[in-house]
Amino acid sequence: MAATIIDGKKIAETIQQELAEEIKQLQAEHHLTPGLAVVLVGENPASKVYVRNKNKACHDIGIYSEQHNLPQEASEQELLALIQQLNHDDKIHGILVQLPLPDHIDEHKVINTILPEKDVDGFHPVNIGKLMIGEKGFRPCTPFGVQKMLSYSGVPIDGAHVVVVGRSNIVGKPIANMLLQKQPDANATVTVCHSRTKDLAAITRQADILIAAIGQPEMITAEMVSENAVVIDVGVNRIEDPASKTGYRLVGDVKFDEVSQKCKAISPVPGGVGPMTITMLLYNTVESAKQSLER
Amino acid sequence: MAATIIDGKKIAETIQQELAEEIKQLQAEHHLTPGLAVVLVGENPASKVYVRNKNKACHDIGIYSEQHNLPQEASEQELLALIQQLNHDDKIHGILVQLPLPDHIDEHKVINTILPEKDVDGFHPVNIGKLMIGEKGFRPCTPFGVQKMLSYSGVPIDGAHVVVVGRSNIVGKPIANMLLQKQPDANATVTVCHSRTKDLAAITRQADILIAAIGQPEMITAEMVSENAVVIDVGVNRIEDPASKTGYRLVGDVKFDEVSQKCKAISPVPGGVGPMTITMLLYNTVESAKQSLER
Repeated sequence: MAATIIDGKKIAETIQQELAEEIKQLQAEHHLTPGLAVVLVGENPASKVYVRNKNKACHDIGIYSEQHNLPQEASEQELLALIQQLNHDDKIHGILVQLPLPDHIDEHKVINTILPEKDVDGFHPVNIGKLMIGEKGFRPCTPFGVQKMLSYSGVPIDGAHVVVVGRSNIVGKPIANMLLQKQPDANATVTVCHSRTKDLAAITRQADILIAAIGQPEMITAEMVSENAVVIDVGVNRIEDPASKTGYRLVGDVKFDEVSQKCKAISPVPGGVGPMTITMLLYNTVESAKQSLER
Repeated sequence: MAATIIDGKKIAETIQQELAEEIKQLQAEHHLTPGLAVVLVGENPASKVYVRNKNKACHDIGIYSEQHNLPQEASEQELLALIQQLNHDDKIHGILVQLPLPDHIDEHKVINTILPEKDVDGFHPVNIGKLMIGEKGFRPCTPFGVQKMLSYSGVPIDGAHVVVVGRSNIVGKPIANMLLQKQPDANATVTVCHSRTKDLAAITRQADILIAAIGQPEMITAEMVSENAVVIDVGVNRIEDPASKTGYRLVGDVKFDEVSQKCKAISPVPGGVGPMTITMLLYNTVESAKQSLER
């Protein structure tokens, strides 16, 4: 029997519609429009595409967005000054500095300069600390998207055994910490596996929810999952494909064809976690605007 | 066959001797004496004992320590002003505010006011955030003590399956995050279990290293551990004992008598994690003094 498909694109659309409604309400009741500033340093082509997509997504649901382009050779000082200015700008509720930054700029210093209250990427140590101890704060967008996907799909998390494969700072560690909190959409027993894990398959087979975030194409095979598992594939890997026009195609960390024939539910790549990430950036920006009303 | 006893008291003494040597060297080479300020608000008898013990431990190894007593009715403002003063005091490298605080004082605000560079308790969100993503920073003393106990006992952590039972902010969550980092004395596969975990025994039996931090007297029984397990008992529970002079005795979260007959190694209560906690406070204070040389 084939698995249910967890359609990230559709869930993302639903959440974006909800956000658009909230924004209308904020404008009507409080004359407040959520605002996002996106900062891009240099000319990295991939980064330019990401930034453009983020601006477009803002526009589509009614978030005010502005883009700040600094040249590749901009000094750290200039970038920090720009962030300080945005920190004090009342129409800006979220600040996103597109990574990676040029080598001469200290990424840590940049992230630490963003006010935690405007850190809609959830990368400031204060927000990471709050995540770990279960306090209110901005959650990083990809793991937050995974959590929302599970809850919008009605997957029970409370009491489930979640196995996370991968321990990156932007996915594996935060999703593990988020799902083990004594909170709604959480309260799971959580195991984190990685390159040093012995007998990985024996552990992944115990998962009620398996989250693959290793960055290795199609590493998770059918024999590594149980029939009852819900599988969320966070991987985005390019593999060569001569049959494709571009010469490559995108695959996840999960061998979709065989795993989807065995497990209970699965998110595809593309069309799974991807659309959720940008949506949670919008969500955090709207949330930040709402919180600004309380200050 | 009875388990090897992991003697926290002895390991703590070893580390304290090493610290005493380091302090002598800091004094000889840099005319620098590490300094700890301990702040106590009110008259809680248990807190007074803890504070006295911390001061004595400092004195024993050559750390300068000062105690600040504020009355129970001291305002939050007064406490914050004292912390600011200590933040700017060059002879103070560590600031510890003894918890709990009176109800009229916001604990979060107090912890957030301590400079992260002097937060030797490791409770500031910035230090917690750094812990989660594996960056340098102060680690909270109890989980740090557990990690050091394991490494000083020669227990292999790299590649081991660590099962943590309990998800408190001061023990369960930080120890889980510390041991899963790609770092020395870490690199473990980590599972966090808690009150909502289904079939707890099936999971704890998989542990190469079992860390009990639930706060429930003698909850971990022999049938929950494997023969190869190293068991670290973080629990400190008072249970009634008419045979004792005080009318009670201290027990851990592990049923020591039966578990120690089965597993490979175990830390007792008392004499296990307890002496390590205060030792890591001293360790962090010395570390902070050393870091002050680099600023």
